[in-house]
Amino acid sequence: MNLCACFLFDGLDEARCGHVRGIVSPVAMAAGHYIFQEGEPAGRLYLIEEGQVELTTRLNGPFELPVAMLKSQADCFGTSSLLPPFIYSISAKCAAAGSLYAIERTELFALIDKDPQLGYLIMKNLSQHLLSRLREVRQELKIHFRNLYKSVH
Amino acid sequence: MNLCACFLFDGLDEARCGHVRGIVSPVAMAAGHYIFQEGEPAGRLYLIEEGQVELTTRLNGPFELPVAMLKSQADCFGTSSLLPPFIYSISAKCAAAGSLYAIERTELFALIDKDPQLGYLIMKNLSQHLLSRLREVRQELKIHFRNLYKSVH
Repeated sequence: MNLCACFLFDGLDEARCGHVRGIVSPVAMAAGHYIFQEGEPAGRLYLIEEGQVELTTRLNGPFELPVAMLKSQADCFGTSSLLPPFIYSISAKCAAAGSLYAIERTELFALIDKDPQLGYLIMKNLSQHLLSRLREVRQELKIHFRNLYKSVH
Repeated sequence: MNLCACFLFDGLDEARCGHVRGIVSPVAMAAGHYIFQEGEPAGRLYLIEEGQVELTTRLNGPFELPVAMLKSQADCFGTSSLLPPFIYSISAKCAAAGSLYAIERTELFALIDKDPQLGYLIMKNLSQHLLSRLREVRQELKIHFRNLYKSVH
């Protein structure tokens, strides 16, 4: 698996990719099972090796709003594990059985403590990802406001 | 001004704060003037020294949706200048006259090139800020969906 195909590791040289490969552990996933749920403590980052993962957020009681469907190798999720308060902000459910790679937050931060350039690249990639998600969600919100505006005028 | 009161510089030691202080330039702002508009190339980060700044996003033609009102010293905006594609994703307008500190992106990145730990801290703070903005906007979106759900059932 080309670990550095994951957006978080974009720009890492071969040596740094090797260090990250040294701390991943394989995890099997069965269809329908939650990998984690919104609100739980976030200790691990995940990358897809095979299979599909649906990301959702809770709406009303049992209702869930879809956020994204991940199905490409090296798609990653659970990035809340990299930032305080270390609480998953969405849920991740296995939509098609397969396998994941998990990275323990503590092991990744131990690498970053020894190599700030690694931390800089990962956090820059994470910021860029969060900024584009923020733009997308703002766009969705604007559609709702436009519809509201149309229904009033 | 305590530059390190800005969330982006949280955790910087006194020496690093000093390096950042070395690249800020004062900029006056007059009420009603745009500091930058959504869609423009993003070359500068700004911190409030005195006055108020309103952040908005374009909705429909001349209509703008409020995003935030900044009025505390060291509140900062224009963080799109730190991430590709380096385009401001919102507009910033002076709501009460005062003065700002501007930081040229190229100068900040020159500091980061020499000190990856500085880059790591800034990007970690930026990620954390963007993640909380993302959670807030998702929350607003959920309110719209809940209202839609109520109006249908």
